[in-house]
Amino acid sequence: MGELEKMTTGLSEECGVFGAYDMDGGDVAPSVYYGLFALQHRGQESCGIAVTDTYGERKVHSKKGLGLVNEVFDEEALQTLHGNLGVGHVRYSTAGGTRAENAMPLVLKYVKGTLVIAHNGNLTNAIELRRELEYTGAIFQTTIDSEVIAYHIARERLNVSCAEDAVKNAMKKIKGAYALVVSSPRKLIGARDPFGLKPLCIGKRDNTYFLASESCAIAAVDAEFVRDVEPGEIITITKNGITSDKSMAISPEKQARCIFEYIYFARMDSTIDNVNVYHARILAGKALAESYPVEADLVVGVPDSGLVAAKGYSEQSGIPYGMAFHKNSYVGRTFIKPKQSQRESSVKIKLNVIEEVVKGKRIVMVDDSIVRGTTSANIIKMLKKAGAKEVHVRISSPPFLHPCYFGTDVPSDDQLIAHSHTTEQIREMIGADSLGYMEVEKLKDMVGDLSYCDACFTGNYPMKVPGRDVSLAFE
Amino acid sequence: MGELEKMTTGLSEECGVFGAYDMDGGDVAPSVYYGLFALQHRGQESCGIAVTDTYGERKVHSKKGLGLVNEVFDEEALQTLHGNLGVGHVRYSTAGGTRAENAMPLVLKYVKGTLVIAHNGNLTNAIELRRELEYTGAIFQTTIDSEVIAYHIARERLNVSCAEDAVKNAMKKIKGAYALVVSSPRKLIGARDPFGLKPLCIGKRDNTYFLASESCAIAAVDAEFVRDVEPGEIITITKNGITSDKSMAISPEKQARCIFEYIYFARMDSTIDNVNVYHARILAGKALAESYPVEADLVVGVPDSGLVAAKGYSEQSGIPYGMAFHKNSYVGRTFIKPKQSQRESSVKIKLNVIEEVVKGKRIVMVDDSIVRGTTSANIIKMLKKAGAKEVHVRISSPPFLHPCYFGTDVPSDDQLIAHSHTTEQIREMIGADSLGYMEVEKLKDMVGDLSYCDACFTGNYPMKVPGRDVSLAFE
Amino acid sequence: MGELEKMTTGLSEECGVFGAYDMDGGDVAPSVYYGLFALQHRGQESCGIAVTDTYGERKVHSKKGLGLVNEVFDEEALQTLHGNLGVGHVRYSTAGGTRAENAMPLVLKYVKGTLVIAHNGNLTNAIELRRELEYTGAIFQTTIDSEVIAYHIARERLNVSCAEDAVKNAMKKIKGAYALVVSSPRKLIGARDPFGLKPLCIGKRDNTYFLASESCAIAAVDAEFVRDVEPGEIITITKNGITSDKSMAISPEKQARCIFEYIYFARMDSTIDNVNVYHARILAGKALAESYPVEADLVVGVPDSGLVAAKGYSEQSGIPYGMAFHKNSYVGRTFIKPKQSQRESSVKIKLNVIEEVVKGKRIVMVDDSIVRGTTSANIIKMLKKAGAKEVHVRISSPPFLHPCYFGTDVPSDDQLIAHSHTTEQIREMIGADSLGYMEVEKLKDMVGDLSYCDACFTGNYPMKVPGRDVSLAFE
Amino acid sequence: MGELEKMTTGLSEECGVFGAYDMDGGDVAPSVYYGLFALQHRGQESCGIAVTDTYGERKVHSKKGLGLVNEVFDEEALQTLHGNLGVGHVRYSTAGGTRAENAMPLVLKYVKGTLVIAHNGNLTNAIELRRELEYTGAIFQTTIDSEVIAYHIARERLNVSCAEDAVKNAMKKIKGAYALVVSSPRKLIGARDPFGLKPLCIGKRDNTYFLASESCAIAAVDAEFVRDVEPGEIITITKNGITSDKSMAISPEKQARCIFEYIYFARMDSTIDNVNVYHARILAGKALAESYPVEADLVVGVPDSGLVAAKGYSEQSGIPYGMAFHKNSYVGRTFIKPKQSQRESSVKIKLNVIEEVVKGKRIVMVDDSIVRGTTSANIIKMLKKAGAKEVHVRISSPPFLHPCYFGTDVPSDDQLIAHSHTTEQIREMIGADSLGYMEVEKLKDMVGDLSYCDACFTGNYPMKVPGRDVSLAFE
Repeated sequence: MGELEKMTTGLSEECGVFGAYDMDGGDVAPSVYYGLFALQHRGQESCGIAVTDTYGERKVHSKKGLGLVNEVFDEEALQTLHGNLGVGHVRYSTAGGTRAENAMPLVLKYVKGTLVIAHNGNLTNAIELRRELEYTGAIFQTTIDSEVIAYHIARERLNVSCAEDAVKNAMKKIKGAYALVVSSPRKLIGARDPFGLKPLCIGKRDNTYFLASESCAIAAVDAEFVRDVEPGEIITITKNGITSDKSMAISPEKQARCIFEYIYFARMDSTIDNVNVYHARILAGKALAESYPVEADLVVGVPDSGLVAAKGYSEQSGIPYGMAFHKNSYVGRTFIKPKQSQRESSVKIKLNVIEEVVKGKRIVMVDDSIVRGTTSANIIKMLKKAGAKEVHVRISSPPFLHPCYFGTDVPSDDQLIAHSHTTEQIREMIGADSLGYMEVEKLKDMVGDLSYCDACFTGNYPMKVPGRDVSLAFE
Repeated sequence: MGELEKMTTGLSEECGVFGAYDMDGGDVAPSVYYGLFALQHRGQESCGIAVTDTYGERKVHSKKGLGLVNEVFDEEALQTLHGNLGVGHVRYSTAGGTRAENAMPLVLKYVKGTLVIAHNGNLTNAIELRRELEYTGAIFQTTIDSEVIAYHIARERLNVSCAEDAVKNAMKKIKGAYALVVSSPRKLIGARDPFGLKPLCIGKRDNTYFLASESCAIAAVDAEFVRDVEPGEIITITKNGITSDKSMAISPEKQARCIFEYIYFARMDSTIDNVNVYHARILAGKALAESYPVEADLVVGVPDSGLVAAKGYSEQSGIPYGMAFHKNSYVGRTFIKPKQSQRESSVKIKLNVIEEVVKGKRIVMVDDSIVRGTTSANIIKMLKKAGAKEVHVRISSPPFLHPCYFGTDVPSDDQLIAHSHTTEQIREMIGADSLGYMEVEKLKDMVGDLSYCDACFTGNYPMKVPGRDVSLAFE
Repeated sequence: MGELEKMTTGLSEECGVFGAYDMDGGDVAPSVYYGLFALQHRGQESCGIAVTDTYGERKVHSKKGLGLVNEVFDEEALQTLHGNLGVGHVRYSTAGGTRAENAMPLVLKYVKGTLVIAHNGNLTNAIELRRELEYTGAIFQTTIDSEVIAYHIARERLNVSCAEDAVKNAMKKIKGAYALVVSSPRKLIGARDPFGLKPLCIGKRDNTYFLASESCAIAAVDAEFVRDVEPGEIITITKNGITSDKSMAISPEKQARCIFEYIYFARMDSTIDNVNVYHARILAGKALAESYPVEADLVVGVPDSGLVAAKGYSEQSGIPYGMAFHKNSYVGRTFIKPKQSQRESSVKIKLNVIEEVVKGKRIVMVDDSIVRGTTSANIIKMLKKAGAKEVHVRISSPPFLHPCYFGTDVPSDDQLIAHSHTTEQIREMIGADSLGYMEVEKLKDMVGDLSYCDACFTGNYPMKVPGRDVSLAFE
Repeated sequence: MGELEKMTTGLSEECGVFGAYDMDGGDVAPSVYYGLFALQHRGQESCGIAVTDTYGERKVHSKKGLGLVNEVFDEEALQTLHGNLGVGHVRYSTAGGTRAENAMPLVLKYVKGTLVIAHNGNLTNAIELRRELEYTGAIFQTTIDSEVIAYHIARERLNVSCAEDAVKNAMKKIKGAYALVVSSPRKLIGARDPFGLKPLCIGKRDNTYFLASESCAIAAVDAEFVRDVEPGEIITITKNGITSDKSMAISPEKQARCIFEYIYFARMDSTIDNVNVYHARILAGKALAESYPVEADLVVGVPDSGLVAAKGYSEQSGIPYGMAFHKNSYVGRTFIKPKQSQRESSVKIKLNVIEEVVKGKRIVMVDDSIVRGTTSANIIKMLKKAGAKEVHVRISSPPFLHPCYFGTDVPSDDQLIAHSHTTEQIREMIGADSLGYMEVEKLKDMVGDLSYCDACFTGNYPMKVPGRDVSLAFE
């Protein structure tokens, strides 16, 4: 998604969830901390950890804050987080919604003690559910869907004999995308929406079980990957081990994994639902090479998200792969563009072309998406100034044309160049010698038999999606 | 309460609430900020302001944080707080309960939009009410009573046609001490518990109405004091002006104002229920002089809370009033006593004796309370070292003997010297030449006809007080 | 100096210095920390501590920073400051000169190891000395006089056999006001300029010697006051004890102690050169009562600096002393006046009148100085609004008419109301019923036989004072 | 240098310097800010900017601090830095030497006004020069060589008619490695030591000249690269343009550029002395392929510093290049390893293997250096666990065997595995199937005709290097 563009245009990433249960009673906060580090790419706005000691007082200790994992947590903070049952969260949100109160995980008291909830995804019926709850006297302290889910779990808990059944009953009411990690006083529960829009997987290390948005976080805590939580499945981990309830599952062909996890969101070293992300991107690059071949001397990727697809393009086309760019890894969230600065471009500070590599060459440049086009135009200009003879742009996703209701913050229409321009117009605007977008029908090459959601490209939503233009009067 | 002792023993103060409604639509955040400054003595742990523009979008903008008013708010923060309807809060809590989530005012969404609530006091049936709510599926995100009150207002709002009636119905269920300042999207509501345990008053400046815990905050915003909210009264302020509902009031003789507001909590420049605090303390000092006359050369007060009663003692006894102490005003919340420090006393750094004043004199030293006695002992030792020939201690409150269930955090029995020692024993332990505590029956001298609560001295509670030893499993 | 006015007009206080040497080798940082707390009123801009272990490696550990003592130092910082020889400093400076580099103490390497220097006062020939040094190739990293002094000590050290003689030789070159605390690797040295413009005294606790700007800091570390360092005296403290060199002293009648230390700067519980500050202020109040008697009902002081002189006025006149004001002790350095705020006065937030006390009374109001007059006008208006029938203002210092070259930052002429208005005009402008300034010739009543400097009132400087309008091109 | 290892073992990088002079009088701080961002890889401990307005008051405004460029500077800070002449610095130092006072650039007053100095490199005779200066009465406030250089410039300035000649005379006394950027009130001066150990180059954009440690910083400010400053050359930039003095130059064959700039320090997109860093690393990889061929399926680089040499190895050997690792870019300076954490490896959190890429493959793994060997061992273990059949390690530098006296902080002998083990022993310890270090004689392949310093590998120092074990008694 034009990773560099995101720095300026604020395209949204998702969230990441993590859970840990040490059946031997050891502290899990350090593992949750490491796990969140590995999921940091899924959300940089805020993060939090809540832990309970299931063998002790069962008090919940939590810490949440705005900022990156290494900004919110230090040694002292981690040492106060005693407990063998833990839930962690990293969060992204659009600028307007930055409220400290919205940081997760949510920690709440309900009839059975303390409930902790971390959630990735968006409900499509959140507004209706909020109104319904308000009409029974409910109060809300955040604007996040997790609070709606928590309410339903709390209410359902009155009618059933265990927390996991309360989660199941809540799932019958909530619609949309969700990967949930929930802790009830003595249990760790994970659940994935029936469509499987958001990923969730299971890991194990000795007698500790883990739940994580991506397998890279399982690797980060030196655990073995066990398997993915299946769409619609509810996993319950207690001192007696792990159990599964798949009664909410739907038929595999109706499942609808977010294809954008493979294109951009997920870390390339993760494997989701048996499809390796690196591999999917190699295949995307190969598909681009098949669809849009060109005579060229070098294939280059825009760091970091375009690199793997560029490799795939190179492998398929036989055109050598090269490193054309240096990316400045010190340009982070807090980079400012001084007001007085006139000439310096913020693209330039993030990316520099290695003239040695591109001079005199015909270049194929692969990126994952184009949003406004200005960043692409800048990069192409830099390549040409460095002596590139031609620049052929290949984009490893189709153009965004439809809003996402499941948690991916696609920019509004007027920001999307593809919304109002043809590919040829865009090519001209960004100064490319040719331009090719991934074909919608080739997306399936990336993920094999898996059933996926490509609604942002096609408008074919896996479920009913009401307009969501009601803004909550909080701020 | 041995103001100096509080710095070490963590005796609790209360909370302070403030509200403002500008009928002309101007921003009230600056006034709320000034008002909270004037109420800072009522709580230094956290503070917050929430404002709404009743003529605009009716969005609520809020900022809360741990720390003093001048630590939480800066120019930038205040500028984002647009709105003509505002609620503010300063909070004190015992060390264990310091949770950022507990900062007030609470800002919640309910069926009629956004509800903001600030509260001073403690409910006596909070635990029962929480359990009841949980058994209907409620979830709690804080450990404060305000959330319980908010739930009841939200539920009652479904049955009545206006927010103030929802407040009234909620008041029928909640028991205990409370001064409430609530904002519903277009209204500012103030309410005081029927016993009048906590103070609340009304001010006006041009077309802006104010509600405040104490009249000193009305003065700080350059407004005119209108009157006190009466015990059990509900005040509603809208664009149409101010209305009152006294249907929850009880007979005046059953009212039970907290006498400790006059002795210690309130600022001496405030007037509560027509009794001026300065005047009440002068009378306390006079009562002490009557009860415990002594031949002496000088009456001195322990700063700052003992100064006025000392003046009263001086006026009654004819013994000259003097300033014996310098108090270091830079010793604040964050003062640390270095571990390596052996000789330095933390009393010494806060207070120093002016030898010139006390040398060779027989001193009457007036303070508002004795908790452990160690601070008093240190001060007396300093006075004697500076040459005082005799030190006669007079305490402007009776000994604490009973717990307070209404929001005053009286230390536990084992910390209270008066609990296990006679006055004569205490006198000896602190090294005083004589010691006199305010007589319980003379408390009425301070406040005239007002009916008050002196349960912490007498055990005569104005209502049923269940033990409150259930701790909430949050932390 | 209109303590309240200072908060807005930025009148300067001085600096405070502190030194400690534990002959038994114990850590002195905690004592220096306590000592600086007691001297905080002399400077709130920055502070610092530097310590050396004379029995160990003789490395210097230091920490300096912008802010109050309790903002710059925490437990962790103090624990890293190991050493039995320590120097501390609190600093005030005008806004323009706030540079982190200027924080003291200065820690420098010179030919004999590490030199630490803390300094209170201003040199009158600093510019000339800087130029001279620059013409020998010197470089300066700060804009403070201490660096000039340090250079001279370092250079003189090459010609003499001990550090204290280097200090003496340096004193022969530097002109102006200074109280110095210096540590050379194994010595603590204190020195006071021959005129004695700035105070410095000696304390002792067991085998630890202390040097401090004021005796209140000696008391704060629970030490015994030994004596004042005499004007022109050099004190040297080593493991062998204390020695004195008075060869730089001048005749007592030429000495020129800053009279403003007694009027305003020093803490009232300090004693400087055998004159107790509290006592001096009582005498100032008595002198005012003699010079400007009036029929009145109550004498009140403007907190905190006017309180003692008010007491003196009361004692002399027989008019009762009263507390008319509540001062909000939470209004500190970081208080902001919100831009949107129109009606609220920043005087009101700092000070409130106790109506009960002043209503219907004829008031004598004592303050230490008037700068612009706006604050006085506001206070008088508040008193009258509260019902005072008359307000008679008495100022315990003569009008400022001349600049101070010795470290007291008297505001520029155009800010000083007394510079361009007669007393009668000022009386009218502030709305007082009468106004009396301390008479210059009565200043001597305050300090008995001591020879003092009153140049800011009279223009009679104790030494040649060149214009000091050269600004250093740093910022 | 085992970039990942550096995160744990604290290997030193160098410093970076930057200068800018806008002959049209525009503010240069934004450009200096961008330039420092591009040089951040040369030092992450502290940074600073000092600017002067040569057409205005010629006051120097500066800001320095501990932390990264984006931590020390924000919009507000940059707006206060007015001036058309600027000097910037990023600094690295060993942990023990972290002192805020040592942050650069140094800003000093000397006889001709303000002198600003930024410096990259180490003097070999700094201790002697300090002692000499101390014996003339000098005082030092930092432990950095720049202060020694500044003293010499200040002293020499008394004897010559311009600042650049003072720099030249100072260069006659100082020995060692240095790239200097100096500003005198109206001039920007750059100088490079005669051996050319540290890089420095010139850029130009419109009427603004730039000096920078590396050409990547010239590109970052959108300027044209003009040329390198030559070893021993002094460049002076004034309102009249640029002049050069090469009288300190030595013969080209005696020059001794630091070869480690090409191997590791410099950014791959920089060109130093006409040798492109990317190209040099490609050649290093090719040289390794020639020296140590092996049958393998894939060549991979350890991110980020091993990637280019891996590409070179691939190109030479014909073995495909692959991306085997994901590097977590959120693991920065402040990453902590929680004490309670037992199983998690900090290598794992920084780097993860993409199983898909390496499974079943014989891998050639290229890195720039091995320090302790533990990181390499961990990575090889991860590769094998992911299914790599063989791992052949190729290191693009020879083993470190000798200390560097010129500013590269090579770890002490006992930390260097190569110091006490043969290559075969190291191979076994890290678990590699084969291991090859760059041959010393092949280093020249990287840089063509350039004369360079390889003393850390060979012990052949370009100048006399006295032991430097004297520690300064500051801390």
